[in-house]
Amino acid sequence: MSLEALLAPRSVAIIGASDNADKIGGRPIRYLQEFGFTGRILPVNPGRETVQGLPAYPSIADLPEVPDAAIIAVAGQTAVEAIEACAAKGVKAAVIMASGFGETGPEGKAEEARLRKLANAAGMRLVGPNSQGLANFGTGAILSFSTMFIEAQPQDGPVACISQSGAMSVVPYGLLRERGIGVRHVHATGNDCDVTVSELAAAVIQDPDVKLLLLYLETLTDPEHLARAAAIGRERGVPIIALKSGRSQDGQRAAASHTGAIATADRVVDAFLEKHGIWRADGVLDLVQAAELYLQGWKPAGRNLAVISNSGATCVLAADAADRAGLPLAQLAEQTEADLRSILPSFASARNPIDITAALLTDSGLFSRVLPVVGADPAVDMFLIGIPVSGRGYDYPRFASDTADFLKQSGKPVVLAAPQPKVRAAFTELGVPAFETEDEAVAALAQFAAHHELLAASRGGALSRPALATAEKAVEETAFLDEHRSLSMLEAEGLTGVERRLCQTADEAVAFLNAADSPLVLKACSAALPHKSEYGLVRLRLSDAAAVETAFSEIKAGVEDLGHAFEGVLAARMTSGERELVVGGRIDPVFGPVVMLGDGGILVEAMPDTALLLPPFDEADVRRALAGLRIAPLFEGVRGKPPLDAAAVARAAQAVGAVLAAGEGRVRSIDVNPLLVSAEGAVALDALVEVAQGE
Amino acid sequence: MSLEALLAPRSVAIIGASDNADKIGGRPIRYLQEFGFTGRILPVNPGRETVQGLPAYPSIADLPEVPDAAIIAVAGQTAVEAIEACAAKGVKAAVIMASGFGETGPEGKAEEARLRKLANAAGMRLVGPNSQGLANFGTGAILSFSTMFIEAQPQDGPVACISQSGAMSVVPYGLLRERGIGVRHVHATGNDCDVTVSELAAAVIQDPDVKLLLLYLETLTDPEHLARAAAIGRERGVPIIALKSGRSQDGQRAAASHTGAIATADRVVDAFLEKHGIWRADGVLDLVQAAELYLQGWKPAGRNLAVISNSGATCVLAADAADRAGLPLAQLAEQTEADLRSILPSFASARNPIDITAALLTDSGLFSRVLPVVGADPAVDMFLIGIPVSGRGYDYPRFASDTADFLKQSGKPVVLAAPQPKVRAAFTELGVPAFETEDEAVAALAQFAAHHELLAASRGGALSRPALATAEKAVEETAFLDEHRSLSMLEAEGLTGVERRLCQTADEAVAFLNAADSPLVLKACSAALPHKSEYGLVRLRLSDAAAVETAFSEIKAGVEDLGHAFEGVLAARMTSGERELVVGGRIDPVFGPVVMLGDGGILVEAMPDTALLLPPFDEADVRRALAGLRIAPLFEGVRGKPPLDAAAVARAAQAVGAVLAAGEGRVRSIDVNPLLVSAEGAVALDALVEVAQGE
Repeated sequence: MSLEALLAPRSVAIIGASDNADKIGGRPIRYLQEFGFTGRILPVNPGRETVQGLPAYPSIADLPEVPDAAIIAVAGQTAVEAIEACAAKGVKAAVIMASGFGETGPEGKAEEARLRKLANAAGMRLVGPNSQGLANFGTGAILSFSTMFIEAQPQDGPVACISQSGAMSVVPYGLLRERGIGVRHVHATGNDCDVTVSELAAAVIQDPDVKLLLLYLETLTDPEHLARAAAIGRERGVPIIALKSGRSQDGQRAAASHTGAIATADRVVDAFLEKHGIWRADGVLDLVQAAELYLQGWKPAGRNLAVISNSGATCVLAADAADRAGLPLAQLAEQTEADLRSILPSFASARNPIDITAALLTDSGLFSRVLPVVGADPAVDMFLIGIPVSGRGYDYPRFASDTADFLKQSGKPVVLAAPQPKVRAAFTELGVPAFETEDEAVAALAQFAAHHELLAASRGGALSRPALATAEKAVEETAFLDEHRSLSMLEAEGLTGVERRLCQTADEAVAFLNAADSPLVLKACSAALPHKSEYGLVRLRLSDAAAVETAFSEIKAGVEDLGHAFEGVLAARMTSGERELVVGGRIDPVFGPVVMLGDGGILVEAMPDTALLLPPFDEADVRRALAGLRIAPLFEGVRGKPPLDAAAVARAAQAVGAVLAAGEGRVRSIDVNPLLVSAEGAVALDALVEVAQGE
Repeated sequence: MSLEALLAPRSVAIIGASDNADKIGGRPIRYLQEFGFTGRILPVNPGRETVQGLPAYPSIADLPEVPDAAIIAVAGQTAVEAIEACAAKGVKAAVIMASGFGETGPEGKAEEARLRKLANAAGMRLVGPNSQGLANFGTGAILSFSTMFIEAQPQDGPVACISQSGAMSVVPYGLLRERGIGVRHVHATGNDCDVTVSELAAAVIQDPDVKLLLLYLETLTDPEHLARAAAIGRERGVPIIALKSGRSQDGQRAAASHTGAIATADRVVDAFLEKHGIWRADGVLDLVQAAELYLQGWKPAGRNLAVISNSGATCVLAADAADRAGLPLAQLAEQTEADLRSILPSFASARNPIDITAALLTDSGLFSRVLPVVGADPAVDMFLIGIPVSGRGYDYPRFASDTADFLKQSGKPVVLAAPQPKVRAAFTELGVPAFETEDEAVAALAQFAAHHELLAASRGGALSRPALATAEKAVEETAFLDEHRSLSMLEAEGLTGVERRLCQTADEAVAFLNAADSPLVLKACSAALPHKSEYGLVRLRLSDAAAVETAFSEIKAGVEDLGHAFEGVLAARMTSGERELVVGGRIDPVFGPVVMLGDGGILVEAMPDTALLLPPFDEADVRRALAGLRIAPLFEGVRGKPPLDAAAVARAAQAVGAVLAAGEGRVRSIDVNPLLVSAEGAVALDALVEVAQGE
């Protein structure tokens, strides 16, 4: 269903229209008139003939036409009745500003659900409740009561901000406007009872003039729409940055009381956003810091940085900052350094970071000669100009125009770091992104480069719908499959399980010992005993027939002593390897199948070292995940040992993902522990699959 | 030697005085006249009778008095001659602005050393070369040519900035002045051939009006003076923040070509600064971000934060930011929450973070009633007020004055986060530190609280002079002590070594086996074979006499086959424990003895998890270091196991420190690996002490 009625309505009714432009029911009317809305404005107010110079109507039923959109600027029961009246009238979309619904608790949630059902049945979409409203400065459709459009003069531009929170729709707006950046969309959706931030994102990202999409989310109940928005964004080259708050426990609790947000395991949100190429901002600064870089449309080829400054200290500090941010300094070609030496004074440094020294005082054209030389070096992907001190004696307007000329010609990212506001202003006026300190400039470059890498690696992918459909059954009873069956199920999808035989008699176990030509492990195998080692029903290092026979009978007796039917003893070959990993998976109620992989061993809980992946994923995705772990060096080889087999780990992780997905929600969790990894392979020594009852 | 002649001279000569106030030899004369210097200004210029309205003198010899200080504003050989003439005249201190000395290489370094010797012999101190100069706005002694004093109007105040780099002396100055903070000292020392940043710091921190000291260092050759400055600072309550650049390899290389800085292992710098209670800034932002907080003179009792905002989103974001920064949200007392509920509307949140909601629009006095209630709760140590949206309809000047009143009464840290400049201005005018975003406000609070904790834990301590004295002998030859002797040396200082016997015959080893009543390890013991296991000269798990005898003779034969004299076989009891740690130490050429401790095992190089400590240190210091390691949970107990014995690890680390210190520089390095740690003790299974030859 298109959201055109919200973003570009031909007519807007304001229920609770006020003649006072400073009231919630008055401000949108002022804005619609002030910011270029060309459609019809239809104030509804039973007590007035005109509102802010426009003819007013006593009720929704009395409106002379069916409005595309309605703003519900009345509260409580009056708001509920207005929504019902709008639905009856045939209004296409309503923005509900009233609060006191889902954010107050289950009763409010239920009322929201009722209103959504009623509206949708009549073909009407709802924004809110508890919404500050939507604002599209491209069409002038300002269905919002935010005061920020008075505080910071709007200007149509390439950025869209979509937020549940009213404050967090206009805070990035204000920060961007302060930096002279135009913003087209400023939408605050509130409780997201029907239209969510994600759905609105999928609509707004199709606006051909939007080049950057900023989101603020307190809850993410609607990942399909966000995945779709991300896919359109990747197709159109529009990056998305999302600030999903509630990372911390305190934050989640506060979010729950703010917009009624449901807590989601935060690391799954990370994995989801990463998979879809959406950059996750940690705070407001991250959301806007690199905006100028994104809007240049640069496509950095890599993350190798050149630093050029008139201060040696800035060179040192920028090199440190780049190292912290993971941006290597570009290694310049010998010819580049030779060319630089011919331009720079002898006491300057022609190596990167390039210290052009105070020679800039007497030679204002230095930048115009140095930049093209460094720019021609293919090793350099990005540029940081540092001018910590300028002003009297320095022709900084010239430096700015030389840099701006270079920026236009090179097509590579160029930013300035300068603590003096007037120096920054000279550069930003000419389109060079400028920051107060090296730290901030480097942070913006690093985010920009990393986001491009993320987008290049992202292939998105649809969510697993069947799994999602079962999410509501999360409370149902589950049971474990026995170890042998669990392993076999995973083997069918490509996992390598330990060489083993399910034995009903000791003779069978002894026969396996002879065939295996290796010591054995014997374990109770029963769906009723998933944690057999806790009951002492595991025997290790059995190397002769007598030991196997004794172990077999002890385990069998142990199972029966516990009151369980004997289902067999699993005889497995003792296997050695370099490192124990764990691979697991579960069905997340919002995101569907989630696969975890990480370091194993008894200390894994106290010192976790794990990564999450959302299926489907390939070997390259698993390698990237492993590269982010602390044990990453093991997959490159340490102390002369060959690297551990990442491809085999990938096959195991993919098998877990495949079993979860194939289970269509009936497989609830999988635990492969340990996965014994060596240079040539990864063998699952144990596995446990949990399924919904009734399978 | 006092640096009074530099900081408060009675007279200043300017060698190379210029009538043009925009030249290096002219600007200090302008500044001295403009910024309240009351002493005598003595321009030296052979070609002029007057300079900037003052009588000039043809040469240093012709000066009518012996100036306290001289500014050498001439270059090259002329500068060298001027220094010599100043020394001959009896000048007390000279500031050398000329570059082209130590930063150009060894020849320049040698010339610097010659000048220092010559000057010091005549009782003259040198600042520079390559110095932008010193500026004391308390005395008006502006012996500096920085243009920043034109760009940003000076105002005497409580901050001192001391830097090697000229740029990095005035960048913090400029940022502080922009925020309205007065700065008294702005010193740029250049190559530090005589007076160092550290020595100047120790002098400046005694200025009774200085309340905060900011340092920028590219090299730290002079840790004793910095330790002294820190001790005075702790005594006087003046915090020191140091930006020591060159953390990264590229940064160190750039620093070497900038001020000729010598690379120092960066983690040792961390350990040194931490020990002395100096906060290490990573970049320019860290250096200045919390300045307003330090200048309030607050003494936070802890780091528990209360967040109060009119926006739910800000509450969530601030809670997340606090979590990232390690500031727990204060758990309010039930009575506090009850009192808040009586003040706030029903839909507001009385739990911390406290969402006072848009009710602030209709009740401008909310802050004046909410703040004292939260402030009375002893669980709250610090306050963050978040006002993401204000302006029209909001009486933010009232919020600012209510907050400022509360700040004065409570004495606890209070900061504002508000993206709108006019809102911030209203608060800062009344003395409330204000930041653009929650992230920045929380970062400043976190640094401030952590620095206070660091200062509370810091006891400083003198550097180990004898060790330093031998630093220049770093290239001399060294040799290893054998394992038995190495362990014994450490045992004398409190280390627990493995139970063992150095055996000359197999019979002795068998006797030890019988006495030990436990399997043994036999190892070659020879100073010539420090890495015996590489030669296969170690035998494990020997539990009967025959095995011991065979092992003994094989090891003896092995040693002799390698051409070494047989010195004995070390028989040690096989010992078990929970975790292998490593403890080591070495003599750092700048900082003296350094002790390292960390996780052990074969993967320690690929996945290091270590901490450094500078002796002397106590058990509490070791516990803090262990708490910073990834394996920290082991010292609290995991999976129901008892905690590992941190006190025993502390004894081992202290023993290493004591042996290094007692060695007076002759003990060059110590390696205890592994130190087998259990719940009750830590046993060194092997140790290697390296000593300078000729011991």
